[in-house]
Amino acid sequence: MRVDVAFTPAEPVAGPVGIVVDVLRATSTIVQALESGYGRVLCCQEVEEAFALRDARGEGVLGGERLAVLIPGFDLGNSPSEYVEPRGETAILTTTNGTRTIVAAAAQCERVFVASLLNLGAVVAAVAELAEDASVVCAGVKGAFALDDAFCAGRIVSLLDCERTDSAEAAARLTRTFASAEEALGASRSAANLRVNGLDADVAWCARESICAVVPRFLAMTGGAAEIGA
Amino acid sequence: MRVDVAFTPAEPVAGPVGIVVDVLRATSTIVQALESGYGRVLCCQEVEEAFALRDARGEGVLGGERLAVLIPGFDLGNSPSEYVEPRGETAILTTTNGTRTIVAAAAQCERVFVASLLNLGAVVAAVAELAEDASVVCAGVKGAFALDDAFCAGRIVSLLDCERTDSAEAAARLTRTFASAEEALGASRSAANLRVNGLDADVAWCARESICAVVPRFLAMTGGAAEIGA
Repeated sequence: MRVDVAFTPAEPVAGPVGIVVDVLRATSTIVQALESGYGRVLCCQEVEEAFALRDARGEGVLGGERLAVLIPGFDLGNSPSEYVEPRGETAILTTTNGTRTIVAAAAQCERVFVASLLNLGAVVAAVAELAEDASVVCAGVKGAFALDDAFCAGRIVSLLDCERTDSAEAAARLTRTFASAEEALGASRSAANLRVNGLDADVAWCARESICAVVPRFLAMTGGAAEIGA
Repeated sequence: MRVDVAFTPAEPVAGPVGIVVDVLRATSTIVQALESGYGRVLCCQEVEEAFALRDARGEGVLGGERLAVLIPGFDLGNSPSEYVEPRGETAILTTTNGTRTIVAAAAQCERVFVASLLNLGAVVAAVAELAEDASVVCAGVKGAFALDDAFCAGRIVSLLDCERTDSAEAAARLTRTFASAEEALGASRSAANLRVNGLDADVAWCARESICAVVPRFLAMTGGAAEIGA
Protein backbone atom coordinates (compact mmCIF):
# COMPACT_ATOMS: atom_id res chain seq x y z
CA MET A 1 0.00 0.00 0.00
CA ARG A 2 1.48 3.28 -1.20
CA VAL A 3 0.37 6.67 0.10
CA ASP A 4 0.98 10.00 -1.62
CA VAL A 5 0.19 13.56 -0.57
CA ALA A 6 -0.83 16.27 -3.05
CA PHE A 7 -0.16 19.49 -1.12
CA THR A 8 -2.09 21.50 -3.71
CA PRO A 9 -5.12 20.50 -5.80
CA ALA A 10 -3.36 21.00 -9.18
CA GLU A 11 -0.88 18.18 -8.51
CA PRO A 12 -1.35 14.82 -10.21
CA VAL A 13 -3.37 12.42 -8.06
CA ALA A 14 -2.64 8.72 -8.27
CA GLY A 15 -4.32 5.75 -6.68
CA PRO A 16 -7.87 4.44 -6.35
CA VAL A 17 -8.49 6.15 -3.00
CA GLY A 18 -8.62 9.94 -2.50
CA ILE A 19 -8.67 11.56 0.93
CA VAL A 20 -9.63 15.25 0.80
CA VAL A 21 -8.44 17.59 3.55
CA ASP A 22 -9.49 21.22 4.16
CA VAL A 23 -8.97 21.42 7.91
CA LEU A 24 -9.72 25.13 8.42
CA ARG A 25 -12.58 24.66 7.99
CA ALA A 26 -14.63 22.93 5.26
CA THR A 27 -13.81 19.28 5.92
CA SER A 28 -13.92 19.75 9.71
CA THR A 29 -17.41 21.24 9.30
CA ILE A 30 -18.57 18.40 7.01
CA VAL A 31 -17.32 15.81 9.52
CA GLN A 32 -18.99 17.62 12.43
CA ALA A 33 -22.31 17.97 10.56
CA LEU A 34 -22.53 14.27 9.65
CA GLU A 35 -21.34 13.22 13.12
CA SER A 36 -24.08 15.37 14.64
CA GLY A 37 -26.85 13.76 12.60
CA TYR A 38 -27.24 15.62 9.34
CA GLY A 39 -28.15 13.05 6.66
CA ARG A 40 -25.97 14.59 3.98
CA VAL A 41 -23.89 17.65 3.15
CA LEU A 42 -24.21 19.18 -0.30
CA CYS A 43 -21.09 21.19 -1.15
CA CYS A 44 -21.45 23.77 -3.87
CA GLN A 45 -19.19 26.51 -5.15
CA GLU A 46 -21.48 29.51 -5.60
CA VAL A 47 -23.89 31.27 -3.26
CA GLU A 48 -26.58 31.35 -5.96
CA GLU A 49 -26.27 27.57 -6.38
CA ALA A 50 -26.89 27.09 -2.66
CA PHE A 51 -30.11 29.15 -2.75
CA ALA A 52 -31.26 27.36 -5.92
CA LEU A 53 -30.54 23.93 -4.38
CA ARG A 54 -32.63 24.70 -1.31
CA ASP A 55 -35.48 26.04 -3.43
CA ALA A 56 -35.41 22.95 -5.66
CA ARG A 57 -35.32 20.53 -2.70
CA GLY A 58 -37.75 22.44 -0.51
CA GLU A 59 -35.41 21.88 2.44
CA GLY A 60 -31.84 22.45 3.53
CA VAL A 61 -29.84 24.48 6.01
CA LEU A 62 -27.67 27.04 4.24
CA GLY A 63 -24.14 27.37 5.58
CA GLY A 64 -20.87 28.79 4.43
CA GLU A 65 -18.62 31.77 4.20
CA ARG A 66 -16.98 34.24 1.93
CA LEU A 67 -13.57 35.34 3.26
CA ALA A 68 -14.50 33.80 6.62
CA VAL A 69 -17.64 35.98 6.90
CA LEU A 70 -21.30 34.80 7.11
CA ILE A 71 -23.20 35.09 3.82
CA PRO A 72 -26.31 37.36 3.86
CA GLY A 73 -29.50 35.26 3.89
CA PHE A 74 -27.68 32.13 5.09
CA ASP A 75 -28.61 30.21 8.26
CA LEU A 76 -25.11 29.33 9.43
CA GLY A 77 -21.46 30.20 8.93
CA ASN A 78 -18.65 27.70 8.40
CA SER A 79 -17.70 27.03 12.04
CA PRO A 80 -18.04 23.32 12.90
CA SER A 81 -19.45 24.32 16.30
CA GLU A 82 -22.54 25.65 14.50
CA TYR A 83 -23.35 22.15 13.24
CA VAL A 84 -23.52 20.31 16.57
CA GLU A 85 -27.31 20.63 16.76
CA PRO A 86 -28.85 19.48 13.46
CA ARG A 87 -31.37 21.95 12.11
CA GLY A 88 -32.55 19.77 9.25
CA GLU A 89 -31.80 16.69 7.17
CA THR A 90 -29.50 18.40 4.68
CA ALA A 91 -26.73 20.94 5.13
CA ILE A 92 -26.01 22.94 1.98
CA LEU A 93 -22.49 24.29 2.30
CA THR A 94 -20.78 26.68 -0.07
CA THR A 95 -17.01 26.72 0.02
CA THR A 96 -14.46 27.45 -2.68
CA ASN A 97 -11.27 25.44 -2.15
CA GLY A 98 -12.88 22.43 -0.45
CA THR A 99 -15.68 21.71 -2.91
CA ARG A 100 -13.48 22.03 -5.97
CA THR A 101 -10.94 19.67 -4.44
CA ILE A 102 -13.60 17.05 -3.67
CA VAL A 103 -14.98 17.23 -7.21
CA ALA A 104 -11.51 17.04 -8.76
CA ALA A 105 -10.57 14.05 -6.56
CA ALA A 106 -13.83 12.29 -7.47
CA ALA A 107 -12.92 12.61 -11.15
CA GLN A 108 -9.55 10.90 -10.57
CA CYS A 109 -10.24 8.35 -7.81
CA GLU A 110 -12.65 5.48 -7.42
CA ARG A 111 -13.44 6.36 -3.81
CA VAL A 112 -13.16 9.72 -2.05
CA PHE A 113 -13.15 10.19 1.71
CA VAL A 114 -13.44 13.50 3.57
CA ALA A 115 -10.90 13.86 6.38
CA SER A 116 -10.03 16.24 9.19
CA LEU A 117 -8.26 15.87 12.51
CA LEU A 118 -11.68 15.41 14.15
CA ASN A 119 -12.16 12.02 12.41
CA LEU A 120 -8.47 11.18 11.96
CA GLY A 121 -8.56 7.71 13.54
CA ALA A 122 -11.77 6.70 11.75
CA VAL A 123 -10.50 7.74 8.31
CA VAL A 124 -7.17 6.01 8.86
CA ALA A 125 -8.96 2.80 9.88
CA ALA A 126 -11.18 2.93 6.77
CA VAL A 127 -8.22 3.52 4.45
CA ALA A 128 -6.12 0.82 6.12
CA GLU A 129 -8.95 -1.69 5.75
CA LEU A 130 -9.13 -1.06 1.98
CA ALA A 131 -5.36 -1.62 1.74
CA GLU A 132 -5.26 0.16 -1.63
CA ASP A 133 -2.96 2.94 -2.83
CA ALA A 134 -4.22 6.30 -1.61
CA SER A 135 -3.63 10.01 -2.16
CA VAL A 136 -4.26 12.65 0.47
CA VAL A 137 -5.38 15.74 -1.46
CA CYS A 138 -5.01 19.06 0.34
CA ALA A 139 -7.43 21.82 -0.66
CA GLY A 140 -4.88 24.53 0.14
CA VAL A 141 -5.71 28.21 -0.26
CA LYS A 142 -6.29 29.55 -3.77
CA GLY A 143 -4.10 26.82 -5.24
CA ALA A 144 -1.26 27.33 -2.76
CA PHE A 145 0.11 25.20 0.07
CA ALA A 146 -1.70 25.45 3.44
CA LEU A 147 0.10 24.45 6.63
CA ASP A 148 -3.08 23.24 8.37
CA ASP A 149 -3.89 20.83 5.54
CA ALA A 150 -0.29 19.62 5.25
CA PHE A 151 -0.22 18.90 8.98
CA CYS A 152 -3.40 16.82 8.79
CA ALA A 153 -2.06 14.96 5.75
CA GLY A 154 1.09 14.18 7.70
CA ARG A 155 -0.91 12.85 10.64
CA ILE A 156 -2.82 10.52 8.29
CA VAL A 157 0.43 9.24 6.75
CA SER A 158 2.05 8.82 10.17
CA LEU A 159 -0.76 6.54 11.34
CA LEU A 160 -0.78 4.33 8.23
CA ASP A 161 1.60 1.40 7.79
CA CYS A 162 2.46 2.17 4.17
CA GLU A 163 5.08 2.92 1.56
CA ARG A 164 5.52 6.70 1.36
CA THR A 165 6.15 8.92 -1.65
CA ASP A 166 8.49 11.90 -1.23
CA SER A 167 5.59 14.21 -0.32
CA ALA A 168 4.11 11.70 2.15
CA GLU A 169 7.50 11.40 3.87
CA ALA A 170 7.81 15.20 3.99
CA ALA A 171 4.31 15.59 5.46
CA ALA A 172 4.98 12.98 8.15
CA ARG A 173 8.26 14.67 9.06
CA LEU A 174 6.59 18.10 9.17
CA THR A 175 4.13 16.95 11.85
CA ARG A 176 6.99 15.97 14.16
CA THR A 177 8.27 19.57 14.23
CA PHE A 178 5.16 20.77 16.07
CA ALA A 179 4.47 20.19 19.76
CA SER A 180 0.72 19.82 19.12
CA ALA A 181 -1.95 19.96 16.43
CA GLU A 182 -3.15 23.27 17.84
CA GLU A 183 0.32 24.76 17.48
CA ALA A 184 0.50 23.58 13.85
CA LEU A 185 -2.94 24.83 12.86
CA GLY A 186 -2.33 28.06 14.75
CA ALA A 187 0.81 28.73 12.69
CA SER A 188 -1.11 28.65 9.40
CA ARG A 189 -2.24 31.62 7.38
CA SER A 190 -5.78 30.21 7.49
CA ALA A 191 -5.71 30.54 11.28
CA ALA A 192 -4.45 34.11 11.02
CA ASN A 193 -7.42 34.91 8.76
CA LEU A 194 -9.80 33.37 11.28
CA ARG A 195 -8.30 35.35 14.17
CA VAL A 196 -8.78 38.60 12.26
CA ASN A 197 -12.48 37.73 12.02
CA GLY A 198 -12.86 36.80 15.70
CA LEU A 199 -13.09 33.09 14.92
CA ASP A 200 -10.10 32.04 17.05
CA ALA A 201 -12.14 29.31 18.74
CA ASP A 202 -12.44 27.38 15.47
CA VAL A 203 -8.69 26.67 15.44
CA ALA A 204 -8.77 24.87 18.79
CA TRP A 205 -12.01 23.11 17.82
CA CYS A 206 -10.54 21.73 14.58
CA ALA A 207 -7.23 20.75 16.24
CA ARG A 208 -8.83 17.98 18.34
CA GLU A 209 -7.89 14.55 17.02
CA SER A 210 -10.12 11.50 16.59
CA ILE A 211 -13.20 12.65 18.50
CA CYS A 212 -15.61 11.82 15.64
CA ALA A 213 -16.34 8.31 14.34
CA VAL A 214 -17.88 9.28 11.02
CA VAL A 215 -16.10 8.68 7.68
CA PRO A 216 -17.75 10.97 5.11
CA ARG A 217 -17.64 9.80 1.49
CA PHE A 218 -18.33 11.47 -1.82
CA LEU A 219 -21.54 9.91 -3.13
CA ALA A 220 -22.41 11.75 -6.33
CA MET A 221 -22.83 15.10 -8.00
CA THR A 222 -26.33 16.38 -7.17
CA GLY A 223 -27.55 19.46 -9.02
CA GLY A 224 -24.03 20.85 -9.39
CA ALA A 225 -23.13 20.07 -5.77
CA ALA A 226 -20.92 17.32 -4.35
CA GLU A 227 -23.10 15.12 -2.13
CA ILE A 228 -21.27 13.84 0.94
CA GLY A 229 -22.72 11.14 3.19
CA ALA A 230 -21.50 8.93 5.99
CA MET B 1 10.71 40.75 2.32
CA ARG B 2 8.41 37.78 1.89
CA VAL B 3 9.55 34.37 0.67
CA ASP B 4 7.31 31.65 -0.73
CA VAL B 5 8.04 28.09 -1.87
CA ALA B 6 6.23 26.43 -4.78
CA PHE B 7 6.89 22.74 -4.19
CA THR B 8 5.62 21.92 -7.69
CA PRO B 9 5.86 23.95 -10.91
CA ALA B 10 2.06 24.22 -11.39
CA GLU B 11 1.59 26.29 -8.24
CA PRO B 12 1.01 30.03 -8.49
CA VAL B 13 4.29 31.96 -8.28
CA ALA B 14 4.27 35.41 -6.74
CA GLY B 15 6.99 37.99 -6.35
CA PRO B 16 9.51 39.68 -8.62
CA VAL B 17 12.29 37.17 -7.88
CA GLY B 18 12.15 33.47 -8.84
CA ILE B 19 14.69 30.93 -7.57
CA VAL B 20 14.56 27.64 -9.51
CA VAL B 21 15.70 24.43 -7.82
CA ASP B 22 16.25 20.99 -9.40
CA VAL B 23 18.92 19.62 -7.10
CA LEU B 24 19.19 16.10 -8.56
CA ARG B 25 20.58 17.12 -10.93
CA ALA B 26 19.84 19.88 -13.45
CA THR B 27 20.46 22.99 -11.37
CA SER B 28 23.49 21.45 -9.63
CA THR B 29 24.95 20.71 -13.06
CA ILE B 30 24.24 24.25 -14.34
CA VAL B 31 25.93 25.74 -11.27
CA GLN B 32 28.94 23.44 -11.62
CA ALA B 33 29.31 24.19 -15.36
CA LEU B 34 29.29 27.97 -14.89
CA GLU B 35 31.54 27.75 -11.83
CA SER B 36 34.02 25.70 -13.87
CA GLY B 37 34.21 28.26 -16.64
CA TYR B 38 31.55 27.54 -19.24
CA GLY B 39 30.33 30.89 -20.58
CA ARG B 40 26.69 29.89 -20.70
CA VAL B 41 24.34 26.94 -20.39
CA LEU B 42 21.53 26.57 -22.90
CA CYS B 43 18.73 24.44 -21.44
CA CYS B 44 16.36 22.88 -23.93
CA GLN B 45 13.62 20.32 -23.60
CA GLU B 46 14.11 17.98 -26.54
CA VAL B 47 17.12 16.01 -27.77
CA GLU B 48 16.49 17.16 -31.36
CA GLU B 49 16.56 20.80 -30.20
CA ALA B 50 19.97 20.24 -28.61
CA PHE B 51 21.45 18.84 -31.85
CA ALA B 52 19.85 21.65 -33.88
CA LEU B 53 21.20 24.30 -31.50
CA ARG B 54 24.76 23.00 -31.78
CA ASP B 55 24.49 22.80 -35.56
CA ALA B 56 23.16 26.37 -35.76
CA ARG B 57 25.85 27.75 -33.42
CA GLY B 58 28.71 25.68 -34.79
CA GLU B 59 29.81 24.98 -31.21
CA GLY B 60 28.52 23.57 -27.96
CA VAL B 61 29.04 20.59 -25.68
CA LEU B 62 25.94 18.38 -25.63
CA GLY B 63 24.93 17.12 -22.20
CA GLY B 64 21.89 15.60 -20.61
CA GLU B 65 19.95 12.48 -19.82
CA ARG B 66 16.79 10.57 -20.43
CA LEU B 67 15.71 8.61 -17.35
CA ALA B 68 19.18 9.21 -15.88
CA VAL B 69 20.89 7.55 -18.87
CA LEU B 70 23.37 9.18 -21.34
CA ILE B 71 21.79 10.21 -24.66
CA PRO B 72 23.28 8.55 -27.81
CA GLY B 73 25.47 11.01 -29.71
CA PHE B 74 25.88 13.31 -26.70
CA ASP B 75 29.23 14.33 -25.23
CA LEU B 76 28.27 14.26 -21.55
CA GLY B 77 25.63 13.02 -19.17
CA ASN B 78 23.96 15.08 -16.45
CA SER B 79 26.41 14.49 -13.60
CA PRO B 80 27.88 17.77 -12.30
CA SER B 81 31.26 16.06 -11.96
CA GLU B 82 31.39 15.82 -15.77
CA TYR B 83 31.42 19.63 -16.02
CA VAL B 84 34.46 20.39 -13.87
CA GLU B 85 36.76 20.62 -16.91
CA PRO B 86 35.19 22.93 -19.51
CA ARG B 87 35.18 21.39 -22.96
CA GLY B 88 33.92 24.49 -24.73
CA GLU B 89 32.30 27.88 -24.31
CA THR B 90 28.70 26.66 -24.29
CA ALA B 91 27.06 23.70 -22.59
CA ILE B 92 23.82 22.64 -24.25
CA LEU B 93 21.82 20.72 -21.67
CA THR B 94 18.57 18.91 -22.27
CA THR B 95 16.44 18.25 -19.21
CA THR B 96 12.70 17.96 -18.81
CA ASN B 97 11.59 19.19 -15.39
CA GLY B 98 14.33 21.79 -14.88
CA THR B 99 14.10 23.63 -18.18
CA ARG B 100 10.33 23.88 -18.11
CA THR B 101 10.44 25.25 -14.59
CA ILE B 102 13.02 27.90 -15.54
CA VAL B 103 10.96 29.00 -18.54
CA ALA B 104 7.73 29.11 -16.52
CA ALA B 105 9.40 31.12 -13.74
CA ALA B 106 10.85 33.55 -16.29
CA ALA B 107 7.32 34.19 -17.57
CA GLN B 108 6.09 35.10 -14.07
CA CYS B 109 9.10 36.79 -12.43
CA GLU B 110 11.27 39.77 -13.32
CA ARG B 111 14.47 38.00 -12.31
CA VAL B 112 15.19 34.26 -12.17
CA PHE B 113 18.13 32.70 -10.35
CA VAL B 114 19.26 29.08 -10.57
CA ALA B 115 19.98 27.50 -7.21
CA SER B 116 21.36 24.30 -5.75
CA LEU B 117 23.05 23.37 -2.50
CA LEU B 118 26.42 23.87 -4.24
CA ASN B 119 25.84 27.64 -4.51
CA LEU B 120 23.46 28.00 -1.55
CA GLY B 121 25.30 30.81 0.23
CA ALA B 122 25.91 32.79 -2.97
CA VAL B 123 22.24 32.63 -4.04
CA VAL B 124 21.03 33.57 -0.58
CA ALA B 125 23.37 36.59 -0.53
CA ALA B 126 22.16 37.72 -3.97
CA VAL B 127 18.49 37.40 -2.98
CA ALA B 128 19.04 39.11 0.37
CA GLU B 129 20.77 42.03 -1.34
CA LEU B 130 17.79 42.58 -3.64
CA ALA B 131 15.48 42.58 -0.59
CA GLU B 132 12.45 41.90 -2.79
CA ASP B 133 9.73 39.27 -2.42
CA ALA B 134 10.90 35.94 -3.79
CA SER B 135 9.55 32.52 -4.71
CA VAL B 136 11.59 29.35 -4.61
CA VAL B 137 10.22 27.18 -7.43
CA CYS B 138 10.93 23.47 -7.18
CA ALA B 139 11.10 21.54 -10.45
CA GLY B 140 9.83 18.37 -8.80
CA VAL B 141 9.41 15.15 -10.77
CA LYS B 142 6.74 15.01 -13.46
CA GLY B 143 4.71 17.68 -11.67
CA ALA B 144 4.97 16.01 -8.26
CA PHE B 145 6.78 16.98 -5.06
CA ALA B 146 10.50 16.00 -4.83
CA LEU B 147 12.16 15.72 -1.42
CA ASP B 148 15.58 16.84 -2.69
CA ASP B 149 14.18 20.09 -4.10
CA ALA B 150 12.05 20.74 -1.02
CA PHE B 151 15.10 20.31 1.20
CA CYS B 152 17.12 22.82 -0.83
CA ALA B 153 14.18 25.26 -0.78
CA GLY B 154 14.03 24.93 2.99
CA ARG B 155 17.76 25.63 3.31
CA ILE B 156 17.36 28.81 1.26
CA VAL B 157 14.44 29.97 3.42
CA SER B 158 16.30 29.11 6.63
CA LEU B 159 19.24 31.34 5.68
CA LEU B 160 17.09 34.35 4.70
CA ASP B 161 15.82 36.86 7.24
CA CYS B 162 12.31 37.07 5.80
CA GLU B 163 8.58 36.74 6.30
CA ARG B 164 7.58 33.16 5.44
CA THR B 165 4.47 31.87 3.71
CA ASP B 166 2.99 28.56 4.91
CA SER B 167 5.03 26.58 2.39
CA ALA B 168 8.24 28.44 3.23
CA GLU B 169 7.71 27.68 6.93
CA ALA B 170 7.04 24.02 6.12
CA ALA B 171 10.17 23.76 3.96
CA ALA B 172 12.35 25.31 6.68
CA ARG B 173 10.90 22.94 9.27
CA LEU B 174 11.43 19.93 6.99
CA THR B 175 15.17 20.60 6.74
CA ARG B 176 15.52 20.39 10.53
CA THR B 177 14.27 16.78 10.53
CA PHE B 178 17.36 15.59 8.63
CA ALA B 179 20.80 15.16 10.17
CA SER B 180 22.51 16.28 6.95
CA ALA B 181 21.89 17.36 3.37
CA GLU B 182 23.21 14.02 2.17
CA GLU B 183 20.66 12.16 4.32
CA ALA B 184 17.85 14.35 2.92
CA LEU B 185 18.85 13.99 -0.72
CA GLY B 186 19.49 10.29 -0.20
CA ALA B 187 15.93 9.78 1.03
CA SER B 188 14.42 11.13 -2.19
CA ARG B 189 13.01 9.11 -5.03
CA SER B 190 15.36 10.96 -7.38
CA ALA B 191 18.31 9.53 -5.45
CA ALA B 192 16.81 6.04 -5.64
CA ASN B 193 16.61 6.41 -9.43
CA LEU B 194 20.26 7.49 -9.56
CA ARG B 195 21.37 4.55 -7.43
CA VAL B 196 19.62 2.12 -9.79
CA ASN B 197 21.71 3.59 -12.61
CA GLY B 198 25.02 3.43 -10.71
CA LEU B 199 25.11 7.19 -10.20
CA ASP B 200 25.23 7.09 -6.38
CA ALA B 201 28.19 9.48 -6.32
CA ASP B 202 26.05 12.31 -7.70
CA VAL B 203 23.98 12.40 -4.52
CA ALA B 204 26.98 13.12 -2.28
CA TRP B 205 28.34 15.57 -4.86
CA CYS B 206 25.12 17.59 -4.97
CA ALA B 207 24.68 17.51 -1.16
CA ARG B 208 27.70 19.75 -0.53
CA GLU B 209 26.64 23.22 0.56
CA SER B 210 28.09 26.57 -0.55
CA ILE B 211 31.20 25.41 -2.35
CA CYS B 212 30.44 27.42 -5.53
CA ALA B 213 30.36 31.23 -5.74
CA VAL B 214 28.44 31.53 -8.99
CA VAL B 215 24.84 32.81 -9.13
CA PRO B 216 23.39 31.69 -12.47
CA ARG B 217 20.62 33.85 -13.93
CA PHE B 218 18.11 33.34 -16.70
CA LEU B 219 19.16 35.72 -19.48
CA ALA B 220 16.81 35.09 -22.39
CA MET B 221 15.20 32.48 -24.59
CA THR B 222 17.69 31.60 -27.35
CA GLY B 223 16.43 29.42 -30.20
CA GLY B 224 13.87 27.67 -27.97
CA ALA B 225 16.38 27.20 -25.14
CA ALA B 226 16.67 29.01 -21.82
CA GLU B 227 20.07 30.76 -21.76
CA ILE B 228 21.65 30.77 -18.31
CA GLY B 229 24.70 32.86 -17.50
CA ALA B 230 26.59 33.93 -14.40
